[in-house]
Amino acid sequence: MGLFSRDIKSLDDLFVHTLRDIYYAENQIAKSLSDMIDKANDPQLKRGFKTHLEETNNHIARLDEVFRMRGVEIEGVDCPAIDGILEEADDVAGEVDDKGVMDAALIAAAQAVEHYEITRYGSLIAWANQLGRRDCAAILQRTLDEEKATDKKLTEMAEKAVNRRAA
Amino acid sequence: MGLFSRDIKSLDDLFVHTLRDIYYAENQIAKSLSDMIDKANDPQLKRGFKTHLEETNNHIARLDEVFRMRGVEIEGVDCPAIDGILEEADDVAGEVDDKGVMDAALIAAAQAVEHYEITRYGSLIAWANQLGRRDCAAILQRTLDEEKATDKKLTEMAEKAVNRRAA
Repeated sequence: MGLFSRDIKSLDDLFVHTLRDIYYAENQIAKSLSDMIDKANDPQLKRGFKTHLEETNNHIARLDEVFRMRGVEIEGVDCPAIDGILEEADDVAGEVDDKGVMDAALIAAAQAVEHYEITRYGSLIAWANQLGRRDCAAILQRTLDEEKATDKKLTEMAEKAVNRRAA
Repeated sequence: MGLFSRDIKSLDDLFVHTLRDIYYAENQIAKSLSDMIDKANDPQLKRGFKTHLEETNNHIARLDEVFRMRGVEIEGVDCPAIDGILEEADDVAGEVDDKGVMDAALIAAAQAVEHYEITRYGSLIAWANQLGRRDCAAILQRTLDEEKATDKKLTEMAEKAVNRRAA
């Protein structure tokens, strides 16, 4: 959809647009996670990012399924939000000059990504339910639950070990 | 701090950097909220955005206080994340051609902003506590509580009325 072309005429259009937004975002996140795995120093954090990369690939597969159920083409749209979040993660990591502080910065960056996904999946699920597509909502809910669990795990890693080593 | 200048050498540097990031973000959010107030059609949503603009100005004042307590200059740093989130909000609003759908899109955009703030304040509070600055953490916690309450109120408005009118 083009800028200012007023192509979003219904809640269903907004649902499909946002599905394409998060589809683009998940694909960019998968690329960034490979880089975060390389940068992480704490072995538990490195493993956590690896697990989340596998989950992210599952999230993309689930989005494929929702596109098919909804009968629309599988494609992404530009998502300046995730581009900005990932650009900032890169910028900050580029400024850090300490392994412990790097891990604390990586956790914060990953949590910014998780929160973006949590908010988008939350809206998508509410809209799918409103549109009578409980089947789509149920699939998206599985991903939302995993994003929330990842965010919680990152908080625990930060508070139990990473922040202490960074200080 | 310049890109790739490796100026973040300690957790305290990361704390101050992130304080400046959210300071820039809160100021950009205050500007965007005026625009969202104009675009909102639902009277309750319009009032909600007005209240949140007042809160946002308080959040900026609290950040000023934390900068002073920490003894560093009050200033922002570039925050590509919030720029991207707000750019996307503008883009999507420009594409919507229905008042009810506009309100649903505005709520989703506002929740993306809230979640960015929630994640950044969450990291800042954890780092402040780790650094022994419970005084700074307590001030930031008041803002975090308000951001979470706003996010919850937006979910309620969406689920109780706005999404139904949009469908």
